Amino acid sequence: MAALITFTTDFGLRDPYVAEMKGVILGIAGAAVQLVDITHEVQRHDVAEAALALEAAAPFFPAGTIHLAVVDPGVGTSRRGLAVAARGQLFVGPDNGLLTPFLAGDEWSAFELASPEHRLPVVSRTFHGRDVFAPAAAHLAGGLAPGRLGPVVGDPVRLAWAEMREVAGAIAGSVVHVDRFGNLVTSIHADSVAGLGEETRLRVSGRLVRMVGTYGDLDRGEVGVLRGSSGRLEIAAREASAAALLKARRGTPVLVSRTISPAKKRVRRLP
Amino acid sequence: MAALITFTTDFGLRDPYVAEMKGVILGIAGAAVQLVDITHEVQRHDVAEAALALEAAAPFFPAGTIHLAVVDPGVGTSRRGLAVAARGQLFVGPDNGLLTPFLAGDEWSAFELASPEHRLPVVSRTFHGRDVFAPAAAHLAGGLAPGRLGPVVGDPVRLAWAEMREVAGAIAGSVVHVDRFGNLVTSIHADSVAGLGEETRLRVSGRLVRMVGTYGDLDRGEVGVLRGSSGRLEIAAREASAAALLKARRGTPVLVSRTISPAKKRVRRLP
Amino acid sequence: MAALITFTTDFGLRDPYVAEMKGVILGIAGAAVQLVDITHEVQRHDVAEAALALEAAAPFFPAGTIHLAVVDPGVGTSRRGLAVAARGQLFVGPDNGLLTPFLAGDEWSAFELASPEHRLPVVSRTFHGRDVFAPAAAHLAGGLAPGRLGPVVGDPVRLAWAEMREVAGAIAGSVVHVDRFGNLVTSIHADSVAGLGEETRLRVSGRLVRMVGTYGDLDRGEVGVLRGSSGRLEIAAREASAAALLKARRGTPVLVSRTISPAKKRVRRLP
Repeated sequence: MAALITFTTDFGLRDPYVAEMKGVILGIAGAAVQLVDITHEVQRHDVAEAALALEAAAPFFPAGTIHLAVVDPGVGTSRRGLAVAARGQLFVGPDNGLLTPFLAGDEWSAFELASPEHRLPVVSRTFHGRDVFAPAAAHLAGGLAPGRLGPVVGDPVRLAWAEMREVAGAIAGSVVHVDRFGNLVTSIHADSVAGLGEETRLRVSGRLVRMVGTYGDLDRGEVGVLRGSSGRLEIAAREASAAALLKARRGTPVLVSRTISPAKKRVRRLP
Repeated sequence: MAALITFTTDFGLRDPYVAEMKGVILGIAGAAVQLVDITHEVQRHDVAEAALALEAAAPFFPAGTIHLAVVDPGVGTSRRGLAVAARGQLFVGPDNGLLTPFLAGDEWSAFELASPEHRLPVVSRTFHGRDVFAPAAAHLAGGLAPGRLGPVVGDPVRLAWAEMREVAGAIAGSVVHVDRFGNLVTSIHADSVAGLGEETRLRVSGRLVRMVGTYGDLDRGEVGVLRGSSGRLEIAAREASAAALLKARRGTPVLVSRTISPAKKRVRRLP
Repeated sequence: MAALITFTTDFGLRDPYVAEMKGVILGIAGAAVQLVDITHEVQRHDVAEAALALEAAAPFFPAGTIHLAVVDPGVGTSRRGLAVAARGQLFVGPDNGLLTPFLAGDEWSAFELASPEHRLPVVSRTFHGRDVFAPAAAHLAGGLAPGRLGPVVGDPVRLAWAEMREVAGAIAGSVVHVDRFGNLVTSIHADSVAGLGEETRLRVSGRLVRMVGTYGDLDRGEVGVLRGSSGRLEIAAREASAAALLKARRGTPVLVSRTISPAKKRVRRLP
């Protein structure tokens, strides 16, 4: 089977930077490699947004896929480069928290990108995506063991994720992403609220919204909450932008509870 | 020859949704499949715009190409999924009119996407593009006969297209698409006005514009009408946006006629 | 090794034009060709911007790569189409200056796209990218010698490039490109100022900025100048847009010199 490499960056599609990485890869690994863009429209330098995109997409790729991720405000400084083996896939990128989703538990190993023979002969100080990370990904695509790239890293940088937490029987979290449709992806996993029953409501921006199965269950313009395609709770409006209707954005707090009076009281104590 | 799958959606390129579909396909069909984006920038939920893009592009792809199209405001409701065989190619998408261009005449067959073994094991209620349509396309790329996906569908949903019609010797239509350059693609096929002769004029937004062969035949800033690359009449301005100059948009009426007085009188009766 | 074709256009990604070119290529050359987008977001009709993108990206692609570039305001007029062999790669596009970077010195040969059998059977007057250039690129991918496409061209059109020049011991140039991050790419090659020493400063928009090694060497919000990833001097701000901070754009003059008093005087004489 042909090798498969994905790309997650904040480079955009107007400049030739993404193509330069792809050219380097095809020169090293041969032109038959399958190249798939996850996104190049991450907000400039937003490491957390890139980590969320890669966390959502990676599970749908086959075993052995190599994920190259470059959002790299520290390029050219002493921050390390990493190759991480986790979940049967490989991840390559800067050691700045971008690979946090794949560093949970014990089922990962990480290596520093240190070996000079797996970089371009001349390494710029401004574009390691092309000069360091792309060559590493290409050599992995050619079958190189990740441990050949450099020494083991035991303390990779991790992001402090927005998480969910239990608050007096309710579950509190926040919006972690606003998608193109204005849907609000939250930090709360749908499985964790499955037991709350039919009366479950989510409070966001001062409004209580009900759980539905899909967009079509909402009335036109109504806001609701549903299990999103990534398994997280997602706030959506039917044929409208929930973000605009609620004036919500990343970081906006949300709280899930049952609509019984005591729970409502507790909800009101939230900021 | 490797299988070839195209993509037409309103998902945009910022979120990982397109990549999730591609990951699913490559996991099922193998990483050697050729993947080509037609567009992911269809206006949100605009089924007609997606149908026009696919109608324009499909004829330039080789026989056997599989076109995956997902603009799906009804996801998770009871609307069916379809696989359509037409013109020597295969089309996969929701049964909401998106595949209208390929359902003309008798030379098509359609099947409902009903078989559980050609979906992902868990089907979300919000992303059938990934969980139902992508797996179906992947199995077709692997050689599955479309009839294996489910029962024959005899009554697929069709859009009421903006069409052209003869009006007292003239041909009336409307703008069906505004492209990146501000060119106005109309519902009128160039072949149908070929017999009108050199004095043919098109009326749009209260102006009469002349027929030309290509953009370079226009004076700078002049608006004209020409046979567009998809075979439809197209209103263009030289190195400028015809849409901006004419304040025209999708739905703006147009009328083609010869510039003799009676025809001009009839033109004036248009709204 | 599979053939590799890149794309550089001003078509954008909303309309199906890029996909139509790819469909034509895959129909002629087979579905296993590797297709890589350099950019489709060139400013409409901006031949120089496309030439710069292709000049930056081409060196990172392997020998034998075929680069298809279409920014073509003269489509349908008498301007020629070209195939150029240079630097071990092939370039296909209109003869309007787009291929200027590959026509330096004597190490190139150019051929007119004249042979009818290497075009589509019907050639529109508005989309030679699809009907003429894409088929030529596909036949080259299949192994056709470029000389089979038509007669030798000895006088291809060249752009008058923004260049650098020595001005009383300093080096004058201009901004040639503003990238997504607001970095200002200049016409001055970093190698040409390497001998000026540590006191080198660059004057732009009335400010003197210092040379640094990478973005991280700058203070937050500080503007500096560094060797960019394409080997040109590049003006950047740390985690901010240098273009916005300096109100600079393509064409803005820059001047590099040492910060000794006589040089500073000369700098002040610039407009």
